[in-house]
Amino acid sequence: MGVTTDRRQIVRYLDGVGDARADAVAVESPLTLVLDGEVLMTTMRTPGHDLDLAAGWLVNESGVRRSADIVTMGAFASQDDDDIDTVRVSLAAGVEPPRPRAFVTSSACGVCSADMLAAIRPPDGPLHSPGWTLRPDAVVPLLDRMRSQQRMFDRTGALHAAALVDPAGDLRWVREDVGRHNAVDKAVGRALLDDLLPLTDHVLLVSGRVSYEIVHKALTAGVAAVAAISGPTTLAVDLAREHDLVLIGFARTDRLNVYAGAASVPNGGSA
Amino acid sequence: MGVTTDRRQIVRYLDGVGDARADAVAVESPLTLVLDGEVLMTTMRTPGHDLDLAAGWLVNESGVRRSADIVTMGAFASQDDDDIDTVRVSLAAGVEPPRPRAFVTSSACGVCSADMLAAIRPPDGPLHSPGWTLRPDAVVPLLDRMRSQQRMFDRTGALHAAALVDPAGDLRWVREDVGRHNAVDKAVGRALLDDLLPLTDHVLLVSGRVSYEIVHKALTAGVAAVAAISGPTTLAVDLAREHDLVLIGFARTDRLNVYAGAASVPNGGSA
Repeated sequence: MGVTTDRRQIVRYLDGVGDARADAVAVESPLTLVLDGEVLMTTMRTPGHDLDLAAGWLVNESGVRRSADIVTMGAFASQDDDDIDTVRVSLAAGVEPPRPRAFVTSSACGVCSADMLAAIRPPDGPLHSPGWTLRPDAVVPLLDRMRSQQRMFDRTGALHAAALVDPAGDLRWVREDVGRHNAVDKAVGRALLDDLLPLTDHVLLVSGRVSYEIVHKALTAGVAAVAAISGPTTLAVDLAREHDLVLIGFARTDRLNVYAGAASVPNGGSA
Repeated sequence: MGVTTDRRQIVRYLDGVGDARADAVAVESPLTLVLDGEVLMTTMRTPGHDLDLAAGWLVNESGVRRSADIVTMGAFASQDDDDIDTVRVSLAAGVEPPRPRAFVTSSACGVCSADMLAAIRPPDGPLHSPGWTLRPDAVVPLLDRMRSQQRMFDRTGALHAAALVDPAGDLRWVREDVGRHNAVDKAVGRALLDDLLPLTDHVLLVSGRVSYEIVHKALTAGVAAVAAISGPTTLAVDLAREHDLVLIGFARTDRLNVYAGAASVPNGGSA
């Protein structure tokens, strides 16, 4: 586990009165992923669970679906300060390697939303068992439980979280990061390393908004539902609908919105 | 102005009762930036102010600092649906072109935080005039005014915002986007196109958290301060301090924290 929060000297104003003091700040530092000796990407992230992060990133960007698809993986400090800054990984023969960064070079003349929806590989199998449902009144308590386990957020107020809920309703792998996407990668990556993919009948919880890329990560992991405290984008809604993924947003105390897959949410009507 | 919100059929649960209805959702769609005929990048964004977005992105990633550095720039719809999905741009001779995507390929063995701080080009000049100050009690009202102009957020609850405050204290260019970084690029890009860079003595307001990259964008634009509703990361704090940028976080009703540049914040102590 890396150093996830650090202290900085600040001035806190409260009711107009300044007070110099040290305060906890969320650590952000670069992690480089090296595949078979070649730099694949560098991302800014909150240190900790770096192997989970790398594994989850590979699930979304490559053909990795089982722990055996990763032959070796290790975290290294390339500098003298002993801070982990590199993950080196090699994939098993025959595993589809990461594509060039999604969409960045996919078209010489732009891509439209329809192109993007069409380009998504369908999930490997059904996202949920026949008859699986997600009770709407179960969602907010799950998000509350994730929130209660956000240790770094308590100290810094500046971190996103993601977690998975297994079919028994148990909360697994609460992961935090300065990046929304990284938190999801960390939770999914842990599940991959425990050989639990595809995550049929699981629910992915996220603390923030749901963009296209979060739904993409959910689909490659094979979860049945995504539930978020904030709202989704149009592209996230459309992608979820196309693949029968339950998508719930604005889940707060006495309310929530079902944007896709309402047939699996009891009394969910026809959304 | 593009279509920034769209409607989707949802089921809203309120106190356990489901109600099928149409609801506004923030539009997310890809925009491709083409430089001199070559695809530079594709980003997901909220449509609207696409030229501002492209211009602001170029300020952060290239040598563009004046409107004349951009010779031609236009927004195009490459598909039949008339939705803008491409911005084509050409730069003046001698203007430093965008580097390969920051840090992604900068090192074969990882980069550490110290490397990154050292690699930042210093701002072109001082960020503020001698004697310039930012009164702490002015910050929250400015963020409140930005919030009151977040039209899309009111409808969708899923958008970030950024804005600039000029030296006279006036709020300029409130810009919204599903991406925090895009909102900042749109505000800075508008300022570039109005030939107001460097933004000496200006304050950049942001609705969310402050990561390393937000501070980087602030420095290339030359603003004097960044003020945010949520908190910064360690790397953001360190980068701000190194360049004497005022960095304020958690600015809410009766409180705020000054993380860097406190000497320019009256009664700001020694942070």
